[in-house]
Amino acid sequence: MIRYTKGHGAENDFVIIEDADAAFDPDAAWVAAVCDRRAGIGADGLLRVVPTKAVPGWEADAARADWFMDYRNADGSIAQMCGNGVRVFARYLVEQGLQKPGRFGVGTRGGVKSVLVPEDGGDITVDMGRAVWPEGSAEVLVDGEWLPSVNVDMGNPHAVVFVSDVAQAGPLTQRPELRPAEVYPEGVNVEFVAALGPQRIDMRVFERGVGETRACGTGACAAMVAAARRDGAVPGTAYEVRLPGGVLSIVEHEDGGIEMTGPAVLVARGELLEGFPATRG
Amino acid sequence: MIRYTKGHGAENDFVIIEDADAAFDPDAAWVAAVCDRRAGIGADGLLRVVPTKAVPGWEADAARADWFMDYRNADGSIAQMCGNGVRVFARYLVEQGLQKPGRFGVGTRGGVKSVLVPEDGGDITVDMGRAVWPEGSAEVLVDGEWLPSVNVDMGNPHAVVFVSDVAQAGPLTQRPELRPAEVYPEGVNVEFVAALGPQRIDMRVFERGVGETRACGTGACAAMVAAARRDGAVPGTAYEVRLPGGVLSIVEHEDGGIEMTGPAVLVARGELLEGFPATRG
Repeated sequence: MIRYTKGHGAENDFVIIEDADAAFDPDAAWVAAVCDRRAGIGADGLLRVVPTKAVPGWEADAARADWFMDYRNADGSIAQMCGNGVRVFARYLVEQGLQKPGRFGVGTRGGVKSVLVPEDGGDITVDMGRAVWPEGSAEVLVDGEWLPSVNVDMGNPHAVVFVSDVAQAGPLTQRPELRPAEVYPEGVNVEFVAALGPQRIDMRVFERGVGETRACGTGACAAMVAAARRDGAVPGTAYEVRLPGGVLSIVEHEDGGIEMTGPAVLVARGELLEGFPATRG
Repeated sequence: MIRYTKGHGAENDFVIIEDADAAFDPDAAWVAAVCDRRAGIGADGLLRVVPTKAVPGWEADAARADWFMDYRNADGSIAQMCGNGVRVFARYLVEQGLQKPGRFGVGTRGGVKSVLVPEDGGDITVDMGRAVWPEGSAEVLVDGEWLPSVNVDMGNPHAVVFVSDVAQAGPLTQRPELRPAEVYPEGVNVEFVAALGPQRIDMRVFERGVGETRACGTGACAAMVAAARRDGAVPGTAYEVRLPGGVLSIVEHEDGGIEMTGPAVLVARGELLEGFPATRG
């Protein structure tokens, strides 16, 4: 019997499966079936909760993080990191008694992330690491016009495009067109960003392997640092990033470290019924 | 603590909430929050399982149906009937031991529906009643062209439009345009239907109050009878109706009675966590 919890961070939603014995390694088809919004449970991705010491290649991080977030996209592909996912993952650890509230580390394929979970159930802060600014740039097609994008790497690749209104991105039912395509051999997340006021930006995101989501944590950080650089903001300036699914507060410190604070809600818990899904990892 | 089951019929999906004491009457905002696909459980609609004798106005049907399907659309509005929902509802009753396999009645706002649930867990047959052919007709805008629609009432109103390929309906992110609008003062479900071969049709549907769904049982019946009438088919001829979410077999008998046979799958069961949703009926 497979038990799960459903939760979301700024409406970026996840199926959480606890695997304390590191005995469950679902394949891509299984994950995709569970994340299917009509034939399955439905989610933007799956978070497997597994002891860091039991994750091949990441055992050394066990000294700083008891639990590892094995994150899969809705299509079953493996992803390095997910900022909203880390908050939901941290909330889960505290609600289940696997961690005490306060500051602790969470293992991810993007390295150990330090989180701060308040005792009162309020917004959770995640150390999102530093932004890396890769060489080269590209252009994204927005409403018939090629606009320059800023490359930001937050453990995963982002192309940030400044627009006057995020509605210009259109329905986003398909992957935005980029050129030259060779710039992103492994794909890229695309953020459309519009200034709303001082230290306030609006953002929509098309996530690699998923589609448009209501929020993307690493995307929000990429958008914030690109906006702060464009604005000439001094380090330590907090930005409010508004996404379709909620509001995140993001700050880049003097040493380059980025902290993101936002909501994390556990909605329901349950178990998969016998025979579902038909495919099995 | 509110327990739920998640299931689907041809990928038309539902949150099922059993209310044997008839003590729970959720308001529209609560239903919409639960059916929200990212901030909630996510579904096309909610099925409340309640004793027929406890449903105001439907007590008399208790002689023929122990249980009543109180069906709500994803936006919280009340709906008369849902063919895929009845199959999922019937599967739930049998799996929970509330009914024995075989033939039994299910109460709905469209009257008592007779269902046949095989012991082996196979496809479920539902008596969908008779089609009514209301006076008047309308036109639906399809790919820039106004095409005539056929009005069929299956307990809820349908406008069936014949096209050469269901892809002509486009992305269906908005309600199809109809004229004259006054024909459907309470709204209408719109079916786009294309012939695939003898007694085989392809269909897409835009459901009133929901949007495009992967299947709609009453819509499939409306499409079938409209196609059978157009084809001059003899009564008792079974049609295969292909929908994005699966295949239904539908037959209209000599006496006008329509039977629909199709899959019904229960995927998961669980409970809503404390504090969700914030709004409460």
